[in-house]
Amino acid sequence: MNVEVLTIGTELLLGFTIDTNGAHIARTLGEIGVQVVRRASVGDRGQEIRDAVQESLARTGAVVTTGGLGPTRDDITKRAVADLYGAPLDFREDIWQALVERFARLGRVAPAVNRLQAEVPRGATVLPNKWGTAPGLWLEDARGFVVMLPGVPREMRKLLEHEVVPRLRVRAGGRVIRSRIVRTSGIPESLLAERLGDIEERVSPLTLAYLPGYDGVDLRLTAWDTDLREADRALEAGVRLINERAGDHAYGEGDTDLAAVLLDQARARGLRIAVAESCTGGLLGKRLTDTPGSSDVFVGGVIAYANEVKTSLLDVEPVLLERHGAVSAEVVCAMALGVAKRLGVPFGISVTGIAGPGGGTEAKPVGTIWLATALQGTTQATHIMLPGSREEIRLRAAQAGLLLGVRRLSATSAGR
Amino acid sequence: MNVEVLTIGTELLLGFTIDTNGAHIARTLGEIGVQVVRRASVGDRGQEIRDAVQESLARTGAVVTTGGLGPTRDDITKRAVADLYGAPLDFREDIWQALVERFARLGRVAPAVNRLQAEVPRGATVLPNKWGTAPGLWLEDARGFVVMLPGVPREMRKLLEHEVVPRLRVRAGGRVIRSRIVRTSGIPESLLAERLGDIEERVSPLTLAYLPGYDGVDLRLTAWDTDLREADRALEAGVRLINERAGDHAYGEGDTDLAAVLLDQARARGLRIAVAESCTGGLLGKRLTDTPGSSDVFVGGVIAYANEVKTSLLDVEPVLLERHGAVSAEVVCAMALGVAKRLGVPFGISVTGIAGPGGGTEAKPVGTIWLATALQGTTQATHIMLPGSREEIRLRAAQAGLLLGVRRLSATSAGR
Repeated sequence: MNVEVLTIGTELLLGFTIDTNGAHIARTLGEIGVQVVRRASVGDRGQEIRDAVQESLARTGAVVTTGGLGPTRDDITKRAVADLYGAPLDFREDIWQALVERFARLGRVAPAVNRLQAEVPRGATVLPNKWGTAPGLWLEDARGFVVMLPGVPREMRKLLEHEVVPRLRVRAGGRVIRSRIVRTSGIPESLLAERLGDIEERVSPLTLAYLPGYDGVDLRLTAWDTDLREADRALEAGVRLINERAGDHAYGEGDTDLAAVLLDQARARGLRIAVAESCTGGLLGKRLTDTPGSSDVFVGGVIAYANEVKTSLLDVEPVLLERHGAVSAEVVCAMALGVAKRLGVPFGISVTGIAGPGGGTEAKPVGTIWLATALQGTTQATHIMLPGSREEIRLRAAQAGLLLGVRRLSATSAGR
Repeated sequence: MNVEVLTIGTELLLGFTIDTNGAHIARTLGEIGVQVVRRASVGDRGQEIRDAVQESLARTGAVVTTGGLGPTRDDITKRAVADLYGAPLDFREDIWQALVERFARLGRVAPAVNRLQAEVPRGATVLPNKWGTAPGLWLEDARGFVVMLPGVPREMRKLLEHEVVPRLRVRAGGRVIRSRIVRTSGIPESLLAERLGDIEERVSPLTLAYLPGYDGVDLRLTAWDTDLREADRALEAGVRLINERAGDHAYGEGDTDLAAVLLDQARARGLRIAVAESCTGGLLGKRLTDTPGSSDVFVGGVIAYANEVKTSLLDVEPVLLERHGAVSAEVVCAMALGVAKRLGVPFGISVTGIAGPGGGTEAKPVGTIWLATALQGTTQATHIMLPGSREEIRLRAAQAGLLLGVRRLSATSAGR
């Protein structure tokens, strides 16, 4: 079953209000197999609302609107849709009395303007709103139905859950949409696409979406089926294929944070972590402390932005800095070793690089990053080139530091 | 001048991705008097994209799309719009070479799938994308124009600013909308509203919007006028009033970052800065290094998450930790003094607190934050209570640390 969602309000068109209602309706209806196939926003103008609703009705025969049911003069959704259905507005004493009582409970007298909210298009089903003053409305004829919900997110969500979902579940006839997300890091979208391009054909019915972000590429698998178990089986097969082909670039599912994965691994191995940061300037430490309860594993670190701090707090020998420069395998290893030793922990992670926009050279352009781990005194370093702005390079460098830590620990057995 | 915005991507319809592009385009175009009169989202399906673009063209003759310009098989915006204009796709060697060079700079070979991004509908104007791999495209005939922009927010914003706004500004003519933003920190919205409530009446035509965020409350003043100078004059008067009444809570305009203000002040006074962080875990250092060129002022710091690190790297005496706890005036002052001494700089800023969700007590509940500055060996500490989640508390605590630094330096004369 397909529906279209129309969010109504001039403030949505001005761009100062982000429309979260449309996304919420799409997610909620998706779970009962009702697919939103188009979303639109129009202003508080009668003709535009009528046109947009009419077009949606013609395409899908099923429309959910939000907004424009309030008591002020720019709330005209109800009148516009009633016009479209040729339905006069009837004043309903029972709805007005409920409003009067609602105001009375708050110690107030119901303002006369709110009488508008007690008007109901003839033939409409009233969806009672216990969370606000504007009831939802459901109008339907041979062309299809229009459900009108208030624009206040909390009221909209409650009415959707209690009044709309139960009705649509019956009509949808049970098709389900299920999805899972696999998170990857350290591999570009184009390379993933080459490795995963045939998954949609090999496992059906399944769609694969690539969602690139600064911390990697998320892969969303979506399965549609009339049978819940079939959908879940297709997803399971898809996730297995992704994990096989993405290898250790795939680090978790859903909203798993790579920092939390690293903390869990270190905890399982009884290892405490310290970080030494140059170009990320504290971002790696910030990522590790975003997770509540990280203090049993993460002890802290040194932000060694200036070279003198690399020497004074991390014991990086000045000769290394002179000979190889601050962005080098030698220095990044010394940083990881130094922070682990100074902070008295077995595991150190270090990052140094050129985040730009200045500071690049031909040999070491902006985006050059060196990363290292020191585990029980043994170092491993790696070198990457990162694209993007200063901010993106720093975000990606911190994520790469976490990934390096996870890989280093994965190569050691737990519980040592 | 009216335009319609069409955001393209099945992800947007599933509701897992919130569409922020549409709002950004609306705000940006609004500033040059171009009004978004309808927004819609459709999935990655050719027929739906063609239908939606055709309808928008028929209504307004001016369409901006985002999304569907990437290299994967679900990126079909270009082909769909080209169909609508009857334009075949030509492979453009120059665009492909630019892509090859972009990948080469990152030490990679351009994947074959990216060749799709070098195809251009015949007759289209190419909008060069220096920030990613998908160029923007502008197709136009007697029916009107369609501007296709990539869906990645950063790339979309850059192309909008550099390629679309200049072209549309010429076509729009007419009324100007000007706005300025004054940034404040450390003062709640309600208190600001009390101080600034009459500005709209005192300076007209002017509207004042309060935009609260985790780093403070931004105040947006907007003036409409047919005369540019009149609008700017009203804004200037409004900004002056705000600065008078908000006092040292107002720290800058536009997208001024408080960290950059602190760096500038320190630079003007010839002072170098170090930070000592507990609950913020690196976030304060991250903020100070977000700004390019911060290395002449900011030398680094210590992330002293565990108490042992406060002692070993910041010389906080264990007796202070035992007697007063890690979240106390005594310890935060010792941290600021310690980091300045260890890193050999005159100015230290420190933060310690309880970010939650665990770790709170009756005497020191979640949200309790102590901050200090040490300037030439003299400390000043302050105590605040912050609301919100762990993330919000940490963001606000870092901002409070920066504000404290700015105030401390403001009280000293420059050039010492």
